[in-house]
Amino acid sequence: MTTQAKPKAAVLLSQPKLRRLCSPACRQYLETHFEVHWNERERELSAEELVPFAEDAAYLFTSWGSPRLSESFFKHAAELRAVAHAAGSVKFFLPASVFEAGVRVFSANPRLSLPVSEYCMAVIFAWLRHIPTYNAALHAGGYRVPGLKGRELTGSRVGLISAGATARGLIRMLQPYEVEIRVYDPFLSEAQARQLGVIPSTLEEAMGCTIVSNHAPNLPETAGLIGAEQLARIPDEGIFINSGRAAQVDTAALVAELKSGRIYAACDVFDEEPLPVDSPLRGLANVILTPHVGAATQQADLALLPAVAEDVVRMMRGEPTRFEIAAADFSRLA
Amino acid sequence: MTTQAKPKAAVLLSQPKLRRLCSPACRQYLETHFEVHWNERERELSAEELVPFAEDAAYLFTSWGSPRLSESFFKHAAELRAVAHAAGSVKFFLPASVFEAGVRVFSANPRLSLPVSEYCMAVIFAWLRHIPTYNAALHAGGYRVPGLKGRELTGSRVGLISAGATARGLIRMLQPYEVEIRVYDPFLSEAQARQLGVIPSTLEEAMGCTIVSNHAPNLPETAGLIGAEQLARIPDEGIFINSGRAAQVDTAALVAELKSGRIYAACDVFDEEPLPVDSPLRGLANVILTPHVGAATQQADLALLPAVAEDVVRMMRGEPTRFEIAAADFSRLA
Repeated sequence: MTTQAKPKAAVLLSQPKLRRLCSPACRQYLETHFEVHWNERERELSAEELVPFAEDAAYLFTSWGSPRLSESFFKHAAELRAVAHAAGSVKFFLPASVFEAGVRVFSANPRLSLPVSEYCMAVIFAWLRHIPTYNAALHAGGYRVPGLKGRELTGSRVGLISAGATARGLIRMLQPYEVEIRVYDPFLSEAQARQLGVIPSTLEEAMGCTIVSNHAPNLPETAGLIGAEQLARIPDEGIFINSGRAAQVDTAALVAELKSGRIYAACDVFDEEPLPVDSPLRGLANVILTPHVGAATQQADLALLPAVAEDVVRMMRGEPTRFEIAAADFSRLA
Repeated sequence: MTTQAKPKAAVLLSQPKLRRLCSPACRQYLETHFEVHWNERERELSAEELVPFAEDAAYLFTSWGSPRLSESFFKHAAELRAVAHAAGSVKFFLPASVFEAGVRVFSANPRLSLPVSEYCMAVIFAWLRHIPTYNAALHAGGYRVPGLKGRELTGSRVGLISAGATARGLIRMLQPYEVEIRVYDPFLSEAQARQLGVIPSTLEEAMGCTIVSNHAPNLPETAGLIGAEQLARIPDEGIFINSGRAAQVDTAALVAELKSGRIYAACDVFDEEPLPVDSPLRGLANVILTPHVGAATQQADLALLPAVAEDVVRMMRGEPTRFEIAAADFSRLA
């Protein structure tokens, strides 16, 4: 294969990012299909460095921490055909005008829903079986914990707020447990609900389940969707999970409900991240706290860059793409 | 319905046990089908109290903590037709000679495998996603934990030691994750393995998986089955789960492997229970410890007595039973 035949690609990812996200096989794949300009720095490019680094590229590969591509950058990038984001949300890295220049946009976001669905299973089971409580008791020298008794997932009721990709993964993982699943999603049709095997429900009905998981998209219309009134609908000893976005849940109301000891919760996302040291969530024994790691798995890390790289190659070959974002969907992205 | 038509049943369970295991509906079911002699005591019957309490019963209902039924008891119990154990292992409550007297034996053991399978899912996911580590870090005021990265269950390799009811439940629950399951079970035929979708394996092969779960039956032949050599086969960062019986695992070898920091583990069963305060397992951050609660769920508690009661009624009607133990299987019971 001759070098001249390959289109130019600029990989903006810093060396630390590449060590995490780009396996030797992925590096080889990129070099097979592109003339690659690698970011050899140990840090991200600055906005000033971006133009000389990437202005002649036909394809741009970006990820978390990559510099935002401004409208002025696109004036320089005359050859650019696509931006491929090896991470989740791409919306804040690009101006909406990107599509007017005929540039196509890819995001590995769909690959990130699988680990988040698995995270939800992890914290559902953790609270159903009181793993944090028992484990703390035994490591502290105790054994039995009076008044504590586990519960089965099988036969329980699960409420899902929104039926996006993560919720659908969760529905699939709940399949062996004969659970009743109530979904609140204004955009879910009766036919889709039937196909998923779930019951279309009001927000109130979904919040009334023993296990409630928030997957609402991060839009202005969903901000504060789950407040004191909604949390009060969770039955006693119910489990509330937020692995989605913090803005949809009224944190003060959740803290009040947790302080009453009435429910259990797991939070992976917070209004402010890193979670402030003085957050009232810290120290409450009935909430599992994790540092926004719902999508953070070894497997997902290594899958993101190949996912968008292979999709760009499909685009180059005129084949149907899998990770491309249509211009019409861009503004509605979470 | 006249009282005379009902056979006599003695329910040995103490009042505290009945409050936990016998719902009002279950009490009514028993009183509909039997003339019930309830143990009105707040404690278990002594061996001496047993004979006058139960000698005229046709059906005996027992559970954890019930007195052992000796051969001499059976000499008194001339009317006895069945013993129904509303709990797991029934072997140690009865002499093997029970069958010679024509008494039939029931155990709710099969109903207890479901919560143990779910327990295994709980601790598998807990370690795959480092829930104990992250949760401890955040509650202690921290946030990110350097060097820690979750893993996905999807696509991983799971080794099961023995293919009993709990392992089969786990196989079913692993179905959504496209895992490769290697099973070590000398009694599992190729055809059964194919039907379960698992790979028949040597003990060494099963122990070489990323996730290994022990379900070996508690028999003299399986004592010490998993020692230092077998544990050493678990890959680095692998997860070892013992929700079965303690005797199958060399605890000193497990402690040594855990102290090296090479693997993660979850133990629900111990050589001595309650776990001694000075157990070397306590305080090791890479082992989840729970107080033999694998089968302990609210749902299972309330299902045990109905399970065997309904089965005894099936026997009375000459219908096929579901929870009965054949004489030939009794000595091989775990």
